[in-house]
Amino acid sequence: MAKGAGMIRPNMATMLSFIMTDASFSQDALQLALNHAVDISFNRITVDGDTSTNDSCVLLASGESGAPQLSMGTAEFDTFKIELNSLMQELAQAIIRDAEGATKFITLRVSGGDSEDDCLAVAYTVAESPLVKTAFFASDPNWGRILAAVGRAPLSKLDIRRVGISLNDVSIVSRGEPDPDYTEAAGQLAMSADEIIVDIVLGDSDHSATVWTSDLSLDYVRINAEYRS
Amino acid sequence: MAKGAGMIRPNMATMLSFIMTDASFSQDALQLALNHAVDISFNRITVDGDTSTNDSCVLLASGESGAPQLSMGTAEFDTFKIELNSLMQELAQAIIRDAEGATKFITLRVSGGDSEDDCLAVAYTVAESPLVKTAFFASDPNWGRILAAVGRAPLSKLDIRRVGISLNDVSIVSRGEPDPDYTEAAGQLAMSADEIIVDIVLGDSDHSATVWTSDLSLDYVRINAEYRS
Repeated sequence: MAKGAGMIRPNMATMLSFIMTDASFSQDALQLALNHAVDISFNRITVDGDTSTNDSCVLLASGESGAPQLSMGTAEFDTFKIELNSLMQELAQAIIRDAEGATKFITLRVSGGDSEDDCLAVAYTVAESPLVKTAFFASDPNWGRILAAVGRAPLSKLDIRRVGISLNDVSIVSRGEPDPDYTEAAGQLAMSADEIIVDIVLGDSDHSATVWTSDLSLDYVRINAEYRS
Repeated sequence: MAKGAGMIRPNMATMLSFIMTDASFSQDALQLALNHAVDISFNRITVDGDTSTNDSCVLLASGESGAPQLSMGTAEFDTFKIELNSLMQELAQAIIRDAEGATKFITLRVSGGDSEDDCLAVAYTVAESPLVKTAFFASDPNWGRILAAVGRAPLSKLDIRRVGISLNDVSIVSRGEPDPDYTEAAGQLAMSADEIIVDIVLGDSDHSATVWTSDLSLDYVRINAEYRS
């Protein structure tokens, strides 16, 4: 179970999540699994960049199944972790699908940066750019706004000649050059989808990060301006 | 003369400004005066936090007046600097008054931080919070949104017991406590003004920073979503 709406970034803010299992674990093993799952789920979503003061994610294991305790380092524990990650990513994504005024579900996949933090910085800068978010709302393939947000992300260096951008597998920019096969009609079609995957390549490293976000719609402003009336 | 609209932060982005004088200066003196004036004018405004790739501020001195060259360290040069600062702040503020969809002109004055950078970080975090900006649009005295934005600003430390907030001289929070004289009617009245000064006190130091911004309105989203149609 998870509850959230607007102020959601980072670190689960204004979010409550409760996850239950009847399996049995040591507290250390369960905490380890939870911490990692939170990092790649609730700590990878943003609606408007605002955060709040309240957040909780609780994982309870009752042991009621009577099955033997799952210990770290076993195949069973690894399977549990994979399922937990998947469940929590599903819940985190559900919060974004239900975000204030959201009309689109956006996945930002950034790869090839000098570190995972660099990839995350680019993902969040693009995810929280009001101009990028209004372009998603308008189904407008204005990739210049995405590239401009990449360019202002707080990185120590960025080699524009290595940057690639694609929208739902439509390649727009490849190694810093406009893709010769790109057409605005193809971009328009990609942006018209309810779910859009933005792939941003920064270079050739193995680092990557994924962030999920929503668009900035007229309803977002209405909900947050008129919530008292 | 200055031109700007949306993507405006930081560092004058998507802005063109040309300033002319018929006085005479050495190039060094003129550059020094310009750099300082830019720092406290065009580099202190934000609309949506987005920046663009183009910006220019040009200061031309023709010497046509025939008056003697103004040299650094003289009273005349100091007077020129004061007038230049004032002119450039007026131009920078005019850009914010003319921002996309703007219905309010907001001045954020932050003081008492551990450094000027800390004050600036708080000012920009509040200025660019979508929740704060929609509250301004709605004339909604939701000071909790302001306090939450102060709390998430990237400072090394923040002592909530020293924080004060007031809106157009209506004190809301004083030394971390709700002001006992505050009423929502007074807050509502302050937020209804077209021009709102937000004073945020972080502590007792002499550091301070001022940033000017606009609200986040339905028209901001319309302008940036529908600009092609």
